[in-house]
Amino acid sequence: MRPSGRALNEMRAVSFETGFTKHAEGSCLIKMGETHVLCTATIEDRVPPFIKGSGLGWVTAEYGMLPRATNTRMRREATTGKQGGRTVEIQRLIGRALRAGVDRVALGERQITVDCDVLQADGGTRCASITGGWVALRLAVNKLMKIGDVKIDPLVDPVSAISCGIYAGQPVLDLDYPEDSEAGVDGNFIMTGSGKLIEVQMSAEGSVFSRDQMNQLMDLATQGTAELAEMQKAAAS
Amino acid sequence: MRPSGRALNEMRAVSFETGFTKHAEGSCLIKMGETHVLCTATIEDRVPPFIKGSGLGWVTAEYGMLPRATNTRMRREATTGKQGGRTVEIQRLIGRALRAGVDRVALGERQITVDCDVLQADGGTRCASITGGWVALRLAVNKLMKIGDVKIDPLVDPVSAISCGIYAGQPVLDLDYPEDSEAGVDGNFIMTGSGKLIEVQMSAEGSVFSRDQMNQLMDLATQGTAELAEMQKAAAS
Amino acid sequence: MRPSGRALNEMRAVSFETGFTKHAEGSCLIKMGETHVLCTATIEDRVPPFIKGSGLGWVTAEYGMLPRATNTRMRREATTGKQGGRTVEIQRLIGRALRAGVDRVALGERQITVDCDVLQADGGTRCASITGGWVALRLAVNKLMKIGDVKIDPLVDPVSAISCGIYAGQPVLDLDYPEDSEAGVDGNFIMTGSGKLIEVQMSAEGSVFSRDQMNQLMDLATQGTAELAEMQKAAAS
Amino acid sequence: MRPSGRALNEMRAVSFETGFTKHAEGSCLIKMGETHVLCTATIEDRVPPFIKGSGLGWVTAEYGMLPRATNTRMRREATTGKQGGRTVEIQRLIGRALRAGVDRVALGERQITVDCDVLQADGGTRCASITGGWVALRLAVNKLMKIGDVKIDPLVDPVSAISCGIYAGQPVLDLDYPEDSEAGVDGNFIMTGSGKLIEVQMSAEGSVFSRDQMNQLMDLATQGTAELAEMQKAAAS
Amino acid sequence: MRPSGRALNEMRAVSFETGFTKHAEGSCLIKMGETHVLCTATIEDRVPPFIKGSGLGWVTAEYGMLPRATNTRMRREATTGKQGGRTVEIQRLIGRALRAGVDRVALGERQITVDCDVLQADGGTRCASITGGWVALRLAVNKLMKIGDVKIDPLVDPVSAISCGIYAGQPVLDLDYPEDSEAGVDGNFIMTGSGKLIEVQMSAEGSVFSRDQMNQLMDLATQGTAELAEMQKAAAS
Amino acid sequence: MRPSGRALNEMRAVSFETGFTKHAEGSCLIKMGETHVLCTATIEDRVPPFIKGSGLGWVTAEYGMLPRATNTRMRREATTGKQGGRTVEIQRLIGRALRAGVDRVALGERQITVDCDVLQADGGTRCASITGGWVALRLAVNKLMKIGDVKIDPLVDPVSAISCGIYAGQPVLDLDYPEDSEAGVDGNFIMTGSGKLIEVQMSAEGSVFSRDQMNQLMDLATQGTAELAEMQKAAAS
Repeated sequence: MRPSGRALNEMRAVSFETGFTKHAEGSCLIKMGETHVLCTATIEDRVPPFIKGSGLGWVTAEYGMLPRATNTRMRREATTGKQGGRTVEIQRLIGRALRAGVDRVALGERQITVDCDVLQADGGTRCASITGGWVALRLAVNKLMKIGDVKIDPLVDPVSAISCGIYAGQPVLDLDYPEDSEAGVDGNFIMTGSGKLIEVQMSAEGSVFSRDQMNQLMDLATQGTAELAEMQKAAAS
Repeated sequence: MRPSGRALNEMRAVSFETGFTKHAEGSCLIKMGETHVLCTATIEDRVPPFIKGSGLGWVTAEYGMLPRATNTRMRREATTGKQGGRTVEIQRLIGRALRAGVDRVALGERQITVDCDVLQADGGTRCASITGGWVALRLAVNKLMKIGDVKIDPLVDPVSAISCGIYAGQPVLDLDYPEDSEAGVDGNFIMTGSGKLIEVQMSAEGSVFSRDQMNQLMDLATQGTAELAEMQKAAAS
Repeated sequence: MRPSGRALNEMRAVSFETGFTKHAEGSCLIKMGETHVLCTATIEDRVPPFIKGSGLGWVTAEYGMLPRATNTRMRREATTGKQGGRTVEIQRLIGRALRAGVDRVALGERQITVDCDVLQADGGTRCASITGGWVALRLAVNKLMKIGDVKIDPLVDPVSAISCGIYAGQPVLDLDYPEDSEAGVDGNFIMTGSGKLIEVQMSAEGSVFSRDQMNQLMDLATQGTAELAEMQKAAAS
Repeated sequence: MRPSGRALNEMRAVSFETGFTKHAEGSCLIKMGETHVLCTATIEDRVPPFIKGSGLGWVTAEYGMLPRATNTRMRREATTGKQGGRTVEIQRLIGRALRAGVDRVALGERQITVDCDVLQADGGTRCASITGGWVALRLAVNKLMKIGDVKIDPLVDPVSAISCGIYAGQPVLDLDYPEDSEAGVDGNFIMTGSGKLIEVQMSAEGSVFSRDQMNQLMDLATQGTAELAEMQKAAAS
Repeated sequence: MRPSGRALNEMRAVSFETGFTKHAEGSCLIKMGETHVLCTATIEDRVPPFIKGSGLGWVTAEYGMLPRATNTRMRREATTGKQGGRTVEIQRLIGRALRAGVDRVALGERQITVDCDVLQADGGTRCASITGGWVALRLAVNKLMKIGDVKIDPLVDPVSAISCGIYAGQPVLDLDYPEDSEAGVDGNFIMTGSGKLIEVQMSAEGSVFSRDQMNQLMDLATQGTAELAEMQKAAAS
Repeated sequence: MRPSGRALNEMRAVSFETGFTKHAEGSCLIKMGETHVLCTATIEDRVPPFIKGSGLGWVTAEYGMLPRATNTRMRREATTGKQGGRTVEIQRLIGRALRAGVDRVALGERQITVDCDVLQADGGTRCASITGGWVALRLAVNKLMKIGDVKIDPLVDPVSAISCGIYAGQPVLDLDYPEDSEAGVDGNFIMTGSGKLIEVQMSAEGSVFSRDQMNQLMDLATQGTAELAEMQKAAAS
């Protein structure tokens, strides 16, 4: 029995509020249950030095949490003098995930930065950031295509992410915070709308797992990301 | 004529969405027109070293802006290694303003931290932070009183803030961004619900002003903060 | 009765020692009673990026305190990794104040940096920095005019600053440290020699004040800055 | 055909030089082909605050690269003011991996820090760090057991890691730098000597992969880590 | 011929203005020609952790330069986020030098921090800091002895420092800036009033020197520091 | 009697393992007894801004210690946010020392960076860094001469360094850690193969020394560096 009463393969309620802020080229507030992340996409006419002049585009991401997004207040990273290790790890993951779903030739030599800021956290913030971040990215690219700056759609397939884990001995889909803090094994699965894998991370903090368990989690994630892809397409249409 | 079509002494539409996030002891999303600030209040059973053992409470504030709250993306402060000068100046102002409205003996030896994070900016973010921050503080104090940890209400009078300035030669109330960037003189006025002054800051970047103009702005601010105080009371009741 | 025995509207003894250091284009050691600030003005043939090519000049300021300028030793900011919030706030104020008294077209596309370093502190260091900083600026501009790099005097009117406050229930001019640490209300007033206002900051740490009190402090400040302006002109002539 | 001429499932030559430095409680220079990592294990009688008094031990890791471990010189992290994102990500991974193989009750309330410093890099430094780091950890624990501070062996099973990837369309074991920089898909697999999984990370920078490919890489990794586990036991015996 | 017209073994005019600032337990403005350094000594009832409880005292030093102490403005170290390498090197030297002249048992378990801030630089700032710093230290210790907190004088012999170098092929005493920037070889010599050596640093940036030259510079330094010691005793009496 | 049983003027066993790492243009692992330093030389086609266009070359150095190079683990400098004062002092010394032995016209407008990383420390790490660093530099320059980028040898004479000190009342050559931590006086002597001096640093932490003692240490150092120069030439030939 899951604390939330959900079935083993049941995701939390998911919603996307597009246009949540007005300045960004794309913006979206994603809610996966009680996890709320504001995602914005910013288009800039510059690229990192290492691809300057290559004609290729770039997509990158930054991640942050408001100090009281969590149950107890965390110190604001701007006052500590640097982003913590967890933050750095997550934003690199988001950037890699979104880039994997982009045709960088079609995007052209410009950069899109996706900012994912967690307003409220209840587990799964990195997955929500990827899923919501893709919607913000989609909206920004739509704008580029509408004004004709981009001719061929560089986003062929949605990118979404979901966490799965072994909770109380059972494989479950979309861990919330009470489950996440108890789970012996958990993983983050990033997949395309057509079921291809982009990134898989499974780990067992202070424990181990079997290949069978790995396959059970993969099965759940395949189902979950397929559902998310449909919702992403509807939200950004 | 103001760009927004507002009368000279007309504030933008103001709203307070209390309970916007669930973890904080008090939370409130204030909207002053297109300026949106998420304010949360966190209660902690510790105080700064310099008042330890004094029996007095403490209220402090932190301020931040999401990178794309503004028209062009600003660099995330967590990645620059420190808070900028403007940020530091603003959060010190918010803290002083809120403390002025608190009976620190009645609060008892505990600290309340008010985080003000700008989700969308259109001028006047520091004033909105103070006005919304007081509502979050009020809600947190209500909780302390309800459970009996605080017996005498330490918040006797609301604290609110409004900006006024000379725009196109006329004194105007509640500058939005287009006005703020053109105004020759502008000021921030922090007052109590009963019309007492807490802090006044008037300045003329690269210019000067007269005492008459100062008095005109004071008059507008007195009217504006009185209106805000009524709305604050209604929101936190 | 003031601790120093001064009358309510009596400033401390003020002196300016110009040419205190030899390398700077302008330098001045200002003493307001026991508050001693070394101000130097440096001319550079570059301006901040945001005005490059505009033909306009720029004036900026930095502020520091020697570790033992105060009664107990403060940690050296160079060893803490950053300037503190108070320092940042003050140096931004000094810069705004001095810029307000400069005709930036007449100055031409160059930057003058005014460094204000407190050798000994006894209250009112930010006001002394502005008043002494203007003298250093005046001397540097004199040099530019003498060699013909600047034709029209960009400094039309002195800029000076004074603090006033409510001490023991009475409005008093030019707070020293014993008064400053007791005052319920205090303000910093920056004015031109001809009585125009540049910046007004009044605040009541943990308290409130009335508009009447505000006016009383304004009156004192108007008198005080007029006196300072005369002394500044004499010092830099 | 692999650039090195190795078979698809053939690891590079692996060696462990234990006792490479004399001060550490355990030390080991691991060479996986041209990738050389110096691993040291330090025992300290303190634990992080969050487990103080719990009776549990802690294992953590730090990772670094000498500036000229790579083909072109990288800036020294000590001079940049912080560890880069890649470094942080890797050292967190090493720490989690080693902790998973430790019985923290048996270890008792002490901390072992494993430092992994890359002297020469040719791909696969994080995997070599984990594999060599376990040997250093094993040697340090041996010392604790010899002097009787630890009674029950807290290291039941070796922990090793290997990278696998799809290179030129073929699944290959133990990528070296020329392969790593060309591989469309690559993964790091951390396993115990008895074939249990600790952490799996697979990603496709700017690309995607199928579940079949994932399974092929898992197969290779299972073989590779089994071989490494035997060598680790021999080295630390 | 020296640019200043001085004889080869002639020091610049030296003066000590004691009590230059009022808060410090000891203070002194030393002028060696156009090099002016403000030295203050602060007594604190705490010592560094590594000697806590040992009964021994500690003397340490910090060094800084005002931004416009030099011919062109240097960036303020507080804004760069750290003290530069040269600053760190100098303040460590000052601390070692002063400690060498202190009987730390007689001083008792307290710390004296000597701050040396260069108001104007013209070569030899580290030597002036040591010589003036010892006077500030002497004055602070006098205070401790007067109130009976210290019974036996911990300062048996003055500590002073002087630079010497090979300028235009000749050994010269007390280099000023024009000489220092041209000298092929230069050294800093720290000695006691009775002619004992505390620290010798000789170097030849991009060049070499002979043992004969070394001895010539030693001779000059021996004469110079003997003269300085007399002046120090007179200044602090 | 020295703890190691060495004669007063007997160095530790010295060895140079050239080519210890493969990527650097020159590399060398120097062992002076139990002190082991990995030195690499990197050639880059850029010079610091202050000599750009001058046709002159530049040699600079960086120094680091692995966290467990010492008896107890030191905190990794990359995690503290800056290099410590001792590190900065040492790497500036190494850079000056190596530059003194270089004909910068012959080198041509390019930079060579010598990284000295201490793998194991037992006293004398800065001297070993200079001596080993010169060998790495020699090897890198050999490469430049072989390919014809440099025509005239810019390294005319080896640069080596040795520490000497007064241990148990006797002048001794090449202090190891047990001697160094007890020595009342110690010095570092940097000399060329032909017996010229480059830098001399002698100090007496908390003590003093005589000119006679200084001369005894100089004599030992002259002998020691002559021996080292022969070994350097042999190693790099």
